[in-house]
Amino acid sequence: MEFTIKQIADMLGGVVKGDNSSKINMLAKIQDAKPGQIAFLSNPKYEHFIYETKASAVIVKKDFVPRKEVSSSLILVDDPYSSFTVLLEEYHKLISFQKVGVEDPCYIGENSKTGKAIYRGAFSYIGQNVKIGDNVKIYPHTYVGDNSVIGNNTILHPNVKLYAGTIVGNNCVIHSGTVLGSDGFGFAPQEDGTYKSIPQLGNVILEDNITIGANTVIDCATLAGDATILRSGVKLDNLIQIAHNVEIGKNTVIAAQTGISGSTKIGENCILAGQVGIAGHLVIANKTSVGAQAGISKSVKEEGQRLIGYPVLDVKEYFRSYAVFKQLPDISTRLKQLEAKLASVQSTVKSE
Amino acid sequence: MEFTIKQIADMLGGVVKGDNSSKINMLAKIQDAKPGQIAFLSNPKYEHFIYETKASAVIVKKDFVPRKEVSSSLILVDDPYSSFTVLLEEYHKLISFQKVGVEDPCYIGENSKTGKAIYRGAFSYIGQNVKIGDNVKIYPHTYVGDNSVIGNNTILHPNVKLYAGTIVGNNCVIHSGTVLGSDGFGFAPQEDGTYKSIPQLGNVILEDNITIGANTVIDCATLAGDATILRSGVKLDNLIQIAHNVEIGKNTVIAAQTGISGSTKIGENCILAGQVGIAGHLVIANKTSVGAQAGISKSVKEEGQRLIGYPVLDVKEYFRSYAVFKQLPDISTRLKQLEAKLASVQSTVKSE
Amino acid sequence: MEFTIKQIADMLGGVVKGDNSSKINMLAKIQDAKPGQIAFLSNPKYEHFIYETKASAVIVKKDFVPRKEVSSSLILVDDPYSSFTVLLEEYHKLISFQKVGVEDPCYIGENSKTGKAIYRGAFSYIGQNVKIGDNVKIYPHTYVGDNSVIGNNTILHPNVKLYAGTIVGNNCVIHSGTVLGSDGFGFAPQEDGTYKSIPQLGNVILEDNITIGANTVIDCATLAGDATILRSGVKLDNLIQIAHNVEIGKNTVIAAQTGISGSTKIGENCILAGQVGIAGHLVIANKTSVGAQAGISKSVKEEGQRLIGYPVLDVKEYFRSYAVFKQLPDISTRLKQLEAKLASVQSTVKSE
Repeated sequence: MEFTIKQIADMLGGVVKGDNSSKINMLAKIQDAKPGQIAFLSNPKYEHFIYETKASAVIVKKDFVPRKEVSSSLILVDDPYSSFTVLLEEYHKLISFQKVGVEDPCYIGENSKTGKAIYRGAFSYIGQNVKIGDNVKIYPHTYVGDNSVIGNNTILHPNVKLYAGTIVGNNCVIHSGTVLGSDGFGFAPQEDGTYKSIPQLGNVILEDNITIGANTVIDCATLAGDATILRSGVKLDNLIQIAHNVEIGKNTVIAAQTGISGSTKIGENCILAGQVGIAGHLVIANKTSVGAQAGISKSVKEEGQRLIGYPVLDVKEYFRSYAVFKQLPDISTRLKQLEAKLASVQSTVKSE
Repeated sequence: MEFTIKQIADMLGGVVKGDNSSKINMLAKIQDAKPGQIAFLSNPKYEHFIYETKASAVIVKKDFVPRKEVSSSLILVDDPYSSFTVLLEEYHKLISFQKVGVEDPCYIGENSKTGKAIYRGAFSYIGQNVKIGDNVKIYPHTYVGDNSVIGNNTILHPNVKLYAGTIVGNNCVIHSGTVLGSDGFGFAPQEDGTYKSIPQLGNVILEDNITIGANTVIDCATLAGDATILRSGVKLDNLIQIAHNVEIGKNTVIAAQTGISGSTKIGENCILAGQVGIAGHLVIANKTSVGAQAGISKSVKEEGQRLIGYPVLDVKEYFRSYAVFKQLPDISTRLKQLEAKLASVQSTVKSE
Repeated sequence: MEFTIKQIADMLGGVVKGDNSSKINMLAKIQDAKPGQIAFLSNPKYEHFIYETKASAVIVKKDFVPRKEVSSSLILVDDPYSSFTVLLEEYHKLISFQKVGVEDPCYIGENSKTGKAIYRGAFSYIGQNVKIGDNVKIYPHTYVGDNSVIGNNTILHPNVKLYAGTIVGNNCVIHSGTVLGSDGFGFAPQEDGTYKSIPQLGNVILEDNITIGANTVIDCATLAGDATILRSGVKLDNLIQIAHNVEIGKNTVIAAQTGISGSTKIGENCILAGQVGIAGHLVIANKTSVGAQAGISKSVKEEGQRLIGYPVLDVKEYFRSYAVFKQLPDISTRLKQLEAKLASVQSTVKSE
């Protein structure tokens, strides 16, 4: 990106005080900013930074009056923080969507179609009968298996792997190393102690506006026609395990290293913290909130609970018990003393 | 796949009732099936579906008598469910093994040999002095390091990474993103607080009939000549950590996100649930079953135990203690009351 | 590697007893060694192996006097174990640095520069404006995003992914599947229950002498100019999650599957075991040692503590409490008995 201070002020509906023709090419924090960068000042606590910053421009409240000399240009707006956020987003769109075109070599199979303005990085692989929408970015080393479908404006970062038949909606972002559609973990025990693989023939479906972090794995469903499904707006972090036939409800957010076992159905607007484990074939109610490292082995029927521990308890209940857990050696000692004293009292009473 | 109903009936030793020339190209559940698909009816509870299904053919028991009109052809067999399983397996073989040939570009180093009917996807990489058996599938972006050996009928999905010297047996399946042979985590502390890497010179050996999920990591052994070994029939899920010099016994099954530390030896026919952690240098007896999120810090000597908790306890023992854990605040209160009462009794007794 | 026994003895400052012209091409344990290999004997307990070994040469103490015939050549040194370690390191350097040159096809963008003696494997990808030092190895399928910088002697194993703007120092080793610079997990909740992505514009910085295992993920910092930082000498194992804006102090070692949440600052010379979870925005003091599967939800202020449990306690404290945890059903029973007895004593005392 490279804009003049004037262009940025216009974008934000702000007014420039000072030089308005300098070029801005980056956003930064006020205390770290260098020439050519733009920062913002919102909290008066940080006002002293504005007299030292090397930023070419600083976004400030429209009623801001400097108490000393300021070398930066000022852009006066109603709400500096939200204006800065707008810039952040614009900048992010610019860098996300600056890649367009087809780098050489890359591979595309028979009967596959791609939309307008797409990016196909070198060494990316698109199988047969694949349909890809407009403005899609397929970074280097990414693999899109046969018969897959990808919506508009979706970004597959380097080395994403979509097994054959995967369906990804619009406006999705998938980070490096993430695998969609690998075989579910299904094995039938045989009489001789070995296991026979159960063929896994379903697929993975992602609706719209989904973000998935790096090195996460989502297995396909077992039967043809079935799918492991993430509903619109789901956000998954890194290194998460989603087993076969799981369904994750709208706008549910899951933090890193959490694992969800086969056929479990997570509700809408749930929040699962990191390293949580959820057993198979459960139903978790909408708006459930689960603390880090918790383990869930039974369905959660009531909406809006906050749970923690293994197996999970209500957060407050868990911490009340855990407070006593720390005193257990003392409790054990006191119990023994009580038993001894009572025995002594009993014998006294008897002997009287 | 595309077969006539007649051909499928012949494959299953069944008899067709109705049109036998329609083409079948997919398997599906009876309630979801579309024209061109085949389903089965085994449980009489689901009989009503057969009168509504759009499947071109349904596999039924040979004594099945419809109570209403059925638009699908019927294939009459002894056991519809096991017949359907046979079809599933055939279908899976077909799609697994349909890829044959060499896509361009792909890389193969000097002195490397590949067997009959193999698939080498675009952008796959085979190093020097590699030996690869018959019917092997090496999908795009997969890396086979120098001096590696791969048996017959093995499938390496897209983006599997085998470090130099890895040995993989026959009939193995390895899913995307899995790494075999990365350096074990070995560092010697130095006097100045830094750590020096200990060279890792061993390799990874997989025997036959092994399945490994996606994004799992198996480190190589430390010394040349030593190996981290998975015995025949082992099944690993996704995102598992297997450290250097670990040995996993025959037919042991390990669920997602479990980690096994260096030099530990897991017995045969064990079942480890998800997110389990096992410390280093332990020996775990055959047929041990470990519950989700458990932590094992001592060897398990007796075969066939069911363990859970951290550190692990017998499952029943753990849940009995956990039941009381939930009541700890109450127990603490009651203990205090007892102490007060007893003190009062003691003073009464003394004063009498 | 291939050296004569004489050459190896010269390298170690040792003296050869026996044939000194045979070729050595591998290191091995004395009990497993084959012709062409070299082993060592340090512990007298293993002396019997020297009379059976097939090693072409064995490194022994200079005062070693065989009690029987030895078929191997001997290399006499002051300290056989440390001499063997020297060989291990030399060997490792040889194999690590034997790859030099550019395999075809590989990709390099505009304005990117590479140093001397570098290796660029087939299908490796280097973006625009990248700077790469001397002796760097970039294995196949590795991706180095635009504007990244890599120091001297650094090894990126197959399929490492560096997002745009990543900075890696000298003498670093990064294993397969590891991702540096993916988006931090930042989403702003909206009134309609959906989440809006917060653009992630920072980067990842690795100082010198850092080793990272396979399939680990390190997210970029949120703001431009900010970085997620690993200080010199940090060693990370496999499948670790490091969130946005984390800082890890010098020489800290972290075992597999551990996760560190956003903006947390880990001190120097800490040791975190496997599957540990650390919450966000904490500060962990230098030399903190954390046991496997522990969960940390508060800052650790005092240096040098050993912690375990969830939430963490001092190790001894935890195990004392856990010992009583196992007896909880018994404690519960005894408490009930005490209450009954005391009630009976009370009524006796009253009735008297």
